[in-house]
Amino acid sequence: MSHINLENDLPGIRGLMAFRPDTAHPLNILAETLLRSDEGLTKGERELIAAFVSALNDCFFCQNIHGAVAQYYATDDEKLVQKVKADYQNAPISDKMKSLLSIAKNVQQGGKFVNKDQIQKAKEEGASDIEIHDTVLIAAAFCMFNRYVDGLGTFAPDAPEMYKERAKNIAEKTGYANSNPN
Amino acid sequence: MSHINLENDLPGIRGLMAFRPDTAHPLNILAETLLRSDEGLTKGERELIAAFVSALNDCFFCQNIHGAVAQYYATDDEKLVQKVKADYQNAPISDKMKSLLSIAKNVQQGGKFVNKDQIQKAKEEGASDIEIHDTVLIAAAFCMFNRYVDGLGTFAPDAPEMYKERAKNIAEKTGYANSNPN
Repeated sequence: MSHINLENDLPGIRGLMAFRPDTAHPLNILAETLLRSDEGLTKGERELIAAFVSALNDCFFCQNIHGAVAQYYATDDEKLVQKVKADYQNAPISDKMKSLLSIAKNVQQGGKFVNKDQIQKAKEEGASDIEIHDTVLIAAAFCMFNRYVDGLGTFAPDAPEMYKERAKNIAEKTGYANSNPN
Repeated sequence: MSHINLENDLPGIRGLMAFRPDTAHPLNILAETLLRSDEGLTKGERELIAAFVSALNDCFFCQNIHGAVAQYYATDDEKLVQKVKADYQNAPISDKMKSLLSIAKNVQQGGKFVNKDQIQKAKEEGASDIEIHDTVLIAAAFCMFNRYVDGLGTFAPDAPEMYKERAKNIAEKTGYANSNPN
C-alpha cells in the first residue's frame, strides 16, 4: 500500500500521476522527449539505459516496464535486457553503448562519479555530445522516477505479461506524453 | 570545463538548458510546478527542501542557487539555510518541516529508504498527503537535477552575489518556466 492515499489503485508511477496531474504533465513530456526519439540514440537504446539504471536503483516497477519496452525493440535477441542487467560489459551491444552504460552507471551513484576517462572513451567509440548528454539526463531522470515510485511506496504487479502488454502499447500507440494513466 | 561542448559559457544547469531546449522545457515546467507554489508547502519551504537535498548530493550550483532563493523568503533569519544544512533537526523550522526533511534525506539515499514511521511522524505533525507527495518529488527531482549538472561537469561561479542576485530575480520576476537561460 502506498504511503499516501492516492484515491486510485493504479500501479507504480501511474497512481502518482493520476493523483497529481500538474506534476504528471512535465514528467510525461520529459519521458517522451528523452525516450521516444531515434535521433542519435535509438528508442531501444534509450529504454535500455532507463531499464539499466532502474535495475541499479532496484525499482521493480520502472525496471520492468522500461525493460519490457527495451525488449520490445530488441527483436533479434529475446534475452537482451536480461543480459545487459546481468553483465553489460559482456552483453551483445555495441562498444559505444557499453561506454554509455558505464557513464549511466556512475551517474546513478552521483553526478561527480562521472570521470573524464569514461567520457573520452565514449567519444572514441563514436558517441556524440548530444548522445552523452541524453545518456546522463536519462540516467539522472530515472534516479528521480525510481525515487518517486519507491519513495511513496507504490505497488507494482508481479505478472510479466502486464509489463509486456503495456510496453507494446507504449511503443506502438501511446508513447508517454499522450498516455492516459488510467 | 564541461564534459561536452555546450557552445555557451553559461553556468550550471543554464548551460545545459541552452544546449538542449527540448529537454529544458519539461524540466523548467517541473521546477515551476514543484517550487513556485504556496499551496500546502510555501515557496520558501519547497526551496529549502531543494537546497537541502542538493547539499546532500554535494551539488555546488544547485545548493547555492536554491539556497539563495530559500534564503530570500526567510526574511526573519538571515542564516536559516545555513542552519538547516548544518543541523536541520535543531534548526528554527517547524516540527512538520523537520519531519518532511527527514523524508527528503532518505529519498536522497534511495526511494526504499523512506519508511512508514517517518511518514506517520510527518502526518502526526500535520503534513497532508499532497505535502508528503511534493516533498518526495522535490527530493527526487533534485537527485536528477544535481546528477545532470555534475554528471556533465558544468562549471559554477564561486561568488555568492551571483546566486543572491539571480535568486531575487527568480523570486520576484521570472520564476522557472519563463526564465531565459541566457
